[in-house]
Amino acid sequence: LFFFYAIKGNHGVALSLAASQCGCSAAVVLPHTTAASKKQAIVLNGGTLVYCEPTMESRELVCAEWQQVRGATFVPSSNSDLIIAGQGTVALEMLEQAEHLDSIIVPVSGGGLISGVAIAAKAINPNIKIYGAEPSGRNNAADAAASKAAGKLVTMESPQTIASGLQARLGSLTWPIVHELVEDIIVVNDDEIREAMYNCFKYLKVVVEPSGAAALAAACNETFIRSTQGRQNVGVILSGGNIDVEECFPLLREHSPTQQ
Amino acid sequence: LFFFYAIKGNHGVALSLAASQCGCSAAVVLPHTTAASKKQAIVLNGGTLVYCEPTMESRELVCAEWQQVRGATFVPSSNSDLIIAGQGTVALEMLEQAEHLDSIIVPVSGGGLISGVAIAAKAINPNIKIYGAEPSGRNNAADAAASKAAGKLVTMESPQTIASGLQARLGSLTWPIVHELVEDIIVVNDDEIREAMYNCFKYLKVVVEPSGAAALAAACNETFIRSTQGRQNVGVILSGGNIDVEECFPLLREHSPTQQ
Repeated sequence: LFFFYAIKGNHGVALSLAASQCGCSAAVVLPHTTAASKKQAIVLNGGTLVYCEPTMESRELVCAEWQQVRGATFVPSSNSDLIIAGQGTVALEMLEQAEHLDSIIVPVSGGGLISGVAIAAKAINPNIKIYGAEPSGRNNAADAAASKAAGKLVTMESPQTIASGLQARLGSLTWPIVHELVEDIIVVNDDEIREAMYNCFKYLKVVVEPSGAAALAAACNETFIRSTQGRQNVGVILSGGNIDVEECFPLLREHSPTQQ
Repeated sequence: LFFFYAIKGNHGVALSLAASQCGCSAAVVLPHTTAASKKQAIVLNGGTLVYCEPTMESRELVCAEWQQVRGATFVPSSNSDLIIAGQGTVALEMLEQAEHLDSIIVPVSGGGLISGVAIAAKAINPNIKIYGAEPSGRNNAADAAASKAAGKLVTMESPQTIASGLQARLGSLTWPIVHELVEDIIVVNDDEIREAMYNCFKYLKVVVEPSGAAALAAACNETFIRSTQGRQNVGVILSGGNIDVEECFPLLREHSPTQQ
């Protein structure tokens, strides 16, 4: 039995909203390849768009420039105690609504969400198992899975995947938590992600972006199914839904059974 | 402030599921123009498809044939005490989750859902206002609105609308309840319905069929906005979501701002 928990997603949008509620300005550094709907949501919530290349290096470089030149305060999207703690509230809400869960699958990018979920969920139920869902991309660059396999933090290039929200890497704070508290990282490819998006639309009636479908893709992946015999109540985090009609349908169409 | 309550919708699918759980067979009479996803959901839940023309007359004729020739028991989709009572549980769930609602907008077809919601909601809060959302169709055939205006049950042809789930007419049981307990019927056209579907997708991340978007279309309609000054907490029932990727995309595209 799957229990689905859908969240809107996107750090930049949340930060823009929080900043404007505090009367601050927020500059959101994001790859120029970011979906139009995300950019629009950031601007609608009062944030300013600052573009970088779709790599971790470029993102860090542009963030550093803004800190040094403009005196901005850096708010990381994952590698921060406060961000991890905030994202852990997702697990509190899930276990409040479905206390019988024996495992939770979480999309992995910088590792903030999965770290928070793992800490919070295991504080409530030490026996619960936490699994990550990570895109391999065309360049086979699933850094969290590689790090788990190696037992140490492995640095790789960003995965080239339709799951653009999952292109960040584990950091100095999140890797030790993933290492210690996460059972396994399930690697999924873009076809599996498209199929999961399609099934979210068709059966759950929920619109998710590719990154938001990664955990469902993992739940349907053979590696996960083999490793979880006996597990009956699986929580699946669908995060997020930042995708427009024009961006969504080509991806669903590519999977659609009538097109195959 | 809007409070959205999404239900999967469709009497035929629910009946098929209930029948198979009881070990009975269910024959579902439906227009041959019905969306493929609804037909598929009925079959998946154990029901048998029996086609009629997309008019009230044809539907009643085919149902009568099955009763007489095959000895089937007729389970109406709306004009029945038990169906009305069952559909009223939607209001119980809504007011349990959002007890501060001062009005609820309900899609109107045969009037079962709105009758149940009106009875249950007003039993809990006599001051709550219930509004219907009805498609006019290309042939301007909103029978519930016409009946409310005339103060008596008016019989019209079925509206020719993309909201195929809202083509039935009020009946002998539902009309008196709508007459007595419903504040007003808001008539919406297909363009308003398409816009509401688009907004459900874009902002709520919920997939709805055209009928499922009718109440949101009514909530955004000028007649409703004018008549509800001072109302602050509006419950909007989104029912249902029986639509496929291939059916949904063209409707959203027709509304999409980039196409205009």
